[in-house]
Amino acid sequence: MSVLIVGSTALDSIKTPMAENPRLLGGSASHAAVAASFFSPVKLVGVVGDDFPKKYIGLYRRRKIDLAGLQIVQGKTFHWSGEYEVNMNNRRTLLTELGVFERFMPHLPESHKASEFVLLANIAPALQHHVLDQMSRPKFVVADTMDLWLNIALGDLLQLLRRIDGFVLNDGEAHQLTKKDNVFAAIKKIHRLGPKYVIVKKGSHGSILSGPRGYFICPAYPLHRVCDPTGAGDSFVGAMMGCLAAARGTIDANLRRAMIYGSVVASFCCEGFGLTRTSGIRRSDIERRVRELEKLTTF
Amino acid sequence: MSVLIVGSTALDSIKTPMAENPRLLGGSASHAAVAASFFSPVKLVGVVGDDFPKKYIGLYRRRKIDLAGLQIVQGKTFHWSGEYEVNMNNRRTLLTELGVFERFMPHLPESHKASEFVLLANIAPALQHHVLDQMSRPKFVVADTMDLWLNIALGDLLQLLRRIDGFVLNDGEAHQLTKKDNVFAAIKKIHRLGPKYVIVKKGSHGSILSGPRGYFICPAYPLHRVCDPTGAGDSFVGAMMGCLAAARGTIDANLRRAMIYGSVVASFCCEGFGLTRTSGIRRSDIERRVRELEKLTTF
Repeated sequence: MSVLIVGSTALDSIKTPMAENPRLLGGSASHAAVAASFFSPVKLVGVVGDDFPKKYIGLYRRRKIDLAGLQIVQGKTFHWSGEYEVNMNNRRTLLTELGVFERFMPHLPESHKASEFVLLANIAPALQHHVLDQMSRPKFVVADTMDLWLNIALGDLLQLLRRIDGFVLNDGEAHQLTKKDNVFAAIKKIHRLGPKYVIVKKGSHGSILSGPRGYFICPAYPLHRVCDPTGAGDSFVGAMMGCLAAARGTIDANLRRAMIYGSVVASFCCEGFGLTRTSGIRRSDIERRVRELEKLTTF
Repeated sequence: MSVLIVGSTALDSIKTPMAENPRLLGGSASHAAVAASFFSPVKLVGVVGDDFPKKYIGLYRRRKIDLAGLQIVQGKTFHWSGEYEVNMNNRRTLLTELGVFERFMPHLPESHKASEFVLLANIAPALQHHVLDQMSRPKFVVADTMDLWLNIALGDLLQLLRRIDGFVLNDGEAHQLTKKDNVFAAIKKIHRLGPKYVIVKKGSHGSILSGPRGYFICPAYPLHRVCDPTGAGDSFVGAMMGCLAAARGTIDANLRRAMIYGSVVASFCCEGFGLTRTSGIRRSDIERRVRELEKLTTF
């Protein structure tokens, strides 16, 4: 089964205390699509300008990502620039040039409308709605978000929560949305807003799933050095959806293991700028770290 | 096998946004000893004043804690007063009255000197040294600490690290000690200072063990409400040492599971003020949560 991924496709200029890297391939959909592509066929929906480097189209193609839904229009590709502090937890946006992204309206090719697995990666909730409006009957829809939408599009987001199966957000966003300091209390409140599955990402502390089978405490893969955490959350949910689309059996039977794969692909993402590390790994590298995580958590 | 626990025995006045509780039984050794007592016989070494409430002696006795090493001297019991903010992660000390603790010199009864399992709970490193000076040949020595000793007794602490098997500290302290932001990089540096086993506590995010068998990522038990986290770290390490003292086989074979028991007893500690919740539970309550944690982490 393939997974449909809709989100931002961008050029990221990233500055860390160690280095500066301009105009890397980025955006929520790029990270999620590359991560998912290790497990299942991927259909990417997004928009780029006519300045979008051909090498990045090549990168998508090498990962066998279906680009029928990628609009290439006249103008500039969405460009984000940010800077990390030493501890990599604090990020400061230096620049946001929306470019062609400003008028982006995700339009699904006919071949995409019957997709069973749908990832609404981080993008305006109104656009996430617009995607669902075009779908015939998806089996499993997961949405990601960011603090920006909680601030400026909360109504749209709350309506979206009634239309999706799974909602992925980080601990800060869970707190912002529910006003609950305790993450498990926050999760309980988010379930009441609609989603059957709630996943809270906690960066290097791993993530928490709450669903019909109760909680799952998902570890992060231990990294001694984080090069650039941009896109780690998108990689996590992308790999998770790719795994689910590829697996036989129920969501409940597969979701925990899919999250472990998500953790592992996110760990590779953090080891390089943008997608440089992730795009160079093989499935066997992923499997090795999954086996390691099994050993690291067994008692 | 019994476990020898040396540390502070205090009266804690704790204020949270919800309530205020004066003069509860507290101190690192009290929390650790009660936690350990669910698993193995415990020998407590500490000091209290002649104002120490008889009911707390009764509490120790009900947990069958050996009090031969508890000095009761003329003067006031160590009294600490602190206030938590809403999110329970920020604590402010309101008052510290050392009382008889100021001149405390841990003196081991003959019967204690051959103890095989020794927990040097949080106390001045010089006193932790003094305990080891009196021991004949302990099998497994673990020390806990706090930021205060990193600030005012770093030399003593660094010498102590060469004399112990395991070192337990929280993530903030690990950062302070090593100047490393990355917790795994910090652990690596701490190993070089001496300890074969390093355990970093991360509060609600669980803990990390590093030892000869590699890392173990130990989850925290999920709590929807934290009443008072005072003593949770002491409970964690106390229960861990109690488990190890009670178990057959090598430290390596038992340490991961012992940490899980530590997580569970710490979770009970957080559910009540001081030792009120922990002192009311049974071994079967602990076993139930251990089984739950197994389910919450399996994938």
